[in-house]
Parts: sequence; structure tokens; C-alpha cells
Amino acid sequence: MSTSKSVNRQILLVSRPQGPVTADNFKLVETPLAPLSEGQFRVRNHYLSLDPYMRGRMNDGKSYAAPQPLDAVMLGGTVGEVVESRHPRFAVGSKVVGSFGWQEYGTSDGAGVQQVTDPAVPLSAWLGAVGMPGVTAWYGLNHLIAPQKGQTVVVSAASGAVGSVVGQLAKRAGCRAVGIAGGAEKCRYVVDTLGFDACVDYKAGNLQHDLKAAAPDGIDGHFENVGGEVLDTVLGQMNAFGRIALCGMIAGYDGQPLPLRQPALILTQRLRVEGFIVSEHLELWPEAQALLARLVTQQQLHYRETIAQGLESAPEALIGLLKGKNFGKQLVKLI
Amino acid sequence: MSTSKSVNRQILLVSRPQGPVTADNFKLVETPLAPLSEGQFRVRNHYLSLDPYMRGRMNDGKSYAAPQPLDAVMLGGTVGEVVESRHPRFAVGSKVVGSFGWQEYGTSDGAGVQQVTDPAVPLSAWLGAVGMPGVTAWYGLNHLIAPQKGQTVVVSAASGAVGSVVGQLAKRAGCRAVGIAGGAEKCRYVVDTLGFDACVDYKAGNLQHDLKAAAPDGIDGHFENVGGEVLDTVLGQMNAFGRIALCGMIAGYDGQPLPLRQPALILTQRLRVEGFIVSEHLELWPEAQALLARLVTQQQLHYRETIAQGLESAPEALIGLLKGKNFGKQLVKLI
Repeated sequence: MSTSKSVNRQILLVSRPQGPVTADNFKLVETPLAPLSEGQFRVRNHYLSLDPYMRGRMNDGKSYAAPQPLDAVMLGGTVGEVVESRHPRFAVGSKVVGSFGWQEYGTSDGAGVQQVTDPAVPLSAWLGAVGMPGVTAWYGLNHLIAPQKGQTVVVSAASGAVGSVVGQLAKRAGCRAVGIAGGAEKCRYVVDTLGFDACVDYKAGNLQHDLKAAAPDGIDGHFENVGGEVLDTVLGQMNAFGRIALCGMIAGYDGQPLPLRQPALILTQRLRVEGFIVSEHLELWPEAQALLARLVTQQQLHYRETIAQGLESAPEALIGLLKGKNFGKQLVKLI
Repeated sequence: MSTSKSVNRQILLVSRPQGPVTADNFKLVETPLAPLSEGQFRVRNHYLSLDPYMRGRMNDGKSYAAPQPLDAVMLGGTVGEVVESRHPRFAVGSKVVGSFGWQEYGTSDGAGVQQVTDPAVPLSAWLGAVGMPGVTAWYGLNHLIAPQKGQTVVVSAASGAVGSVVGQLAKRAGCRAVGIAGGAEKCRYVVDTLGFDACVDYKAGNLQHDLKAAAPDGIDGHFENVGGEVLDTVLGQMNAFGRIALCGMIAGYDGQPLPLRQPALILTQRLRVEGFIVSEHLELWPEAQALLARLVTQQQLHYRETIAQGLESAPEALIGLLKGKNFGKQLVKLI
């Protein structure tokens, strides 16, 4: 059982990126911790999740969510332990998943905070394969792509937190799972460890040809985490009546929007292209998380983490994530 | 009752357009009419339908349908009258809808030919509001956009054969119907005669601003007949969870494909974008045509026709259609 300190360390967003994110968009501050009121508890965050969606929130444009305010703690999912409590249902020592953002301590009245009880699921997995990224994969695959046995499903950023789950679930559904990832090492991992049927290295420079070889019968379902050239290339190889779930357009977050080269293919191939945000489907999370937790504990769902050490490393870790430097789920260890 | 002549006049596609369609892509020929075999009948075509999809078929690229073969009669929908018959169910004098293409006479064994019996529906309407364009409008609006009462539905090429039906059906569903059309005269017709709430003249040069004024609460459903700048502009004004039915991408048929400028909006606004071909949903045609025929006979569904005279006028009429020179449904009168 830990005891609470009196000072919190936090990272604020202090300016919006003009193009790529830079370290000076952020500022580390120390803030005194106020005493708890009745009905509150305090969490020592163990891990902070870094995710591509954060880049979108740093902009001030039209999006599905309000922009991250300036001079406020950067948003983000966290897991940690309750270290002080005046709340009847969150006892000291409880492990919790919350959205406390880029800071070492979070204070809450319990709203939106989930207690985790299964000791067989590693705490950090609640930010990855069993958490938001895993549920994102599950929702997009099952509810938007809805592949049939024997069909070919492609996923970009295939070694990442979302993509790795998409492909493994597609395999379990009897599909041919094809990943797209950056670099030979990631591709080997996607095939050898995650069990995809094939993985295409988009950095090798032959994306169109290599994808055709990896998906010789064409593509029936595509889960897009990247956008840009990858999406253009996949679109050109979609079979009639294919479904594309748009989960991320990371390539377009910086600067000018990336166009889609041949939208007419959506018509000529009678495709369905659909964007989604998993947090708008909370009613489905329990079903998804129960499955994902079971698969993780039975070691039937594999994942990999890249862990940066210490709150102060978060800005560089996010910058690296947005450039594809991470390998698997990007976390920051805060303790 | 007419009698058959011995010579048929036909227009063949003799070369594929490199860029815009030109008159020398076509050739008018005279062909002797062979005697009928048992089980056949001959139709004197009264009207030929010209439609934007024809441009796509003239290309040799990947599409939903095989390309129009060279040196063969150009494809197209027709209505006409049986003038000679050795078929038990198609008597001389019957009015029929078929796909006899760009020729004065068609010979058939009945496959794919529909007899029309309701004398209150003008024969030419079976190529327009009650035919393929009308059913296209009905399907895309009801099955893909599925608007709710009070929502805003936009349709491009709003004075055309498809667009005019989309907006009128949207009004009947209790929606705000906003058209996009080329020129003040077409826009006046769309509002004054067809009863749309508003119509934006894209040729006026203020599409973004004018569309915002016409759809002040944003756009919930869009029926796309054009593509290119119109689609880009609409996409930027879609509300969350909007639906876009892709029916035509006429602007991209010539030459280079037209990109979609900001596909990331599909994600950030959680849109569904879906392409469709109405001939793949034949099981729904009877329901749609029964409704459309009833609305036309009750004068609750209005339409306008541009009629070119004589088979030889078909190439120039198609070229004009592809440039938006027609006003309403483009037909060629063959008799």
C-alpha cells in the first residue's frame, strides 16, 4: 500500500503544433496536491497510454471531439492504484483504469473510472489489447467489416496496438489476415508471433505489387489505421461489396489533409467506407473486454509493448509514435 | 399497329474516348433485319434513354460492368412497341421496356423485357422517374441514406432524372431537401416546380458559402451524382453520423481520376459512404416502381425531359448530357 505525496507532476499542452508535434508544444509542471473532499479518491498512475488520436486532439479543427485545451493537462488513458480514498467503493489498493492524462496522480469521484479485478491480465493490457485499442479492433472488425470465413482482411499499422488485435481476431474468424507494417522486423513479428498469413512492408517501396502478392484473391475487408498511400493502394485492390473501417488517418494529422486518389472506386466496386469512434459504443465494451481478457489470459491473443520511462519522456515518445518508431503498444511508465 | 421494315439503323461504338467523348467514337450503320425465329418478337423502339453511366462503360477500365464492346450497338435502355411477334406472351401492340440500345429495332426472346400496362404513365417515364433513374433515387435514398424526418438531404445534379426524384422523395419523408444544380434556371425549376427547399447553383462560384446558407443545420444525407468539387464541398459540411450514397462520379469519367480532398472527414464525422448499382437490387424494383408509377399518375412526382430527335442525334445528345447541357431526363425519340 502506497502513501500519497504532496506534489503532482503534470505535462500541459502549451501550444498547438504547426505541422509535426515538437517537444516545446508541452511543458512539465509541478502542482501541489489538494486534500481530498468527501467522495473523492486519488490514484497513483502506473502507466500512461499514448495513442495516435492524441495528434488530432492537439489541433483546433473540426473533429469528433473538442480539442485538447491549451495550458491544461494533456489527455490520455491511464492505469494505476488508489493510494488515498474518501470514496465508499474505491478502496486504497484498488487497481483502476481511467483517463487521468499526462500526470502522476489523478483525483476522481469515480465517474468513468473502471476497477479491474482479474489478476491474470497484466495491468498495462487494460491500455492495450484488453482496453481501448483492443475494443477498437473488435468493434471495427466485427461490426463494420463483418468478414465471412475465407475472406481476406487487411489491416494497416499491423504490429500496433489496434492492428495486432484486428489480424488475430480475423484469423480466429477464419479469414486470411494480411498486415501492412513499416519495416522487415515488424513484418516478421506480425507473421511469426501474431500469426497473420502475410505482412507487407510498405517501406520496401513496392506496396502495390507486394500487397497483390499477399492478397491474391483481392481484399474483402480493410481496417485503416493510417490513410494516405496505404489507403489508396488498398482501395485499388478491393473486391466488390468490400467494407473499409476507418479508424485512423494518422498520415493526415499534420499539415495539409491527404487526399484519396480514386474515390470513384467506392462506387464502381460498391464499397462501404465507414468511420467510427469506439468511445461512442460503450454499451458493447463489456462484451468485447470479456472476450479480449479471456484470450489474453489463455495466451491466444499476443501483443507487444514499447515502454518509455518516466513522465518527462512522454512528449518524445508521442513524437516517435506518430513517426511509427514504436513497436506495438506505446506506454509511458510513470512509477 | 405498325409494321416492321426490313432495315434497322444502329449506332455502334467504334473507338474509346481519350478524354471527353467525341462524335467520331460512334458510327451509324444500316443493317438488314433477319426474319424472326419461333419464340422471338421485334420491338420498334420509341425512346432511347441516355444516362451518365454510359460514359463509364465506354472505358476499358475496372468497373462494375464489362465495358461496352467496340463495333457493337451502344447499350442503353429503350421503350417501344412490339411490331412483329412469334412469342406467346408478347403480342403485337404491346408496350415494352427493354435494353435494346442505340437502334431503331430490337429483337428479343423476352429475357429482361418488361411489359407496361398502365396507360396513365407516359411511355417515356419508364426510362425516367418510373424507370431505372427513379428506382436508383428510391434505393439510394431509402436504403442507404435512410433519412429521418427533419434531417437535411442534399442531392447533386438535382434537376436530373435521378436527382429530381431524390429530392421529391426526401420532401415526402419530411426532410429538408437541398439541390445542387448548374445554372439559375435549373435551380429555379428545382425549387419552384419540384418543391425542394433550396437549390445551390454550383456555377455561381460560391458553392461552399451558398451550400452553408441552404443547409444551415449541416447535412445528414447526401446523394452524389457528380463527384469532384461538389462532393468535396458537401463532405466538409456533413453532420456526425451522416450517410453518403455514391451513385455517380460523372466528373471523373474523363481522363484522370478526381481525388477526394479530405477523406479524413469520413473518420472524424463518423460517416458512412457507400456505392451502389441499382441493377444489383432487382428484387426491390417492383415495390419502387409501384410507388413511383402511383406518384406520377397522381401528379405528385414531377419530372422534365430533354428530347433529341432521331437516332442520329444520340451521340451529340450524350456529349451534351455529360457536360450538363440537358435539363431533366435526356431521351432520344426514335420514331
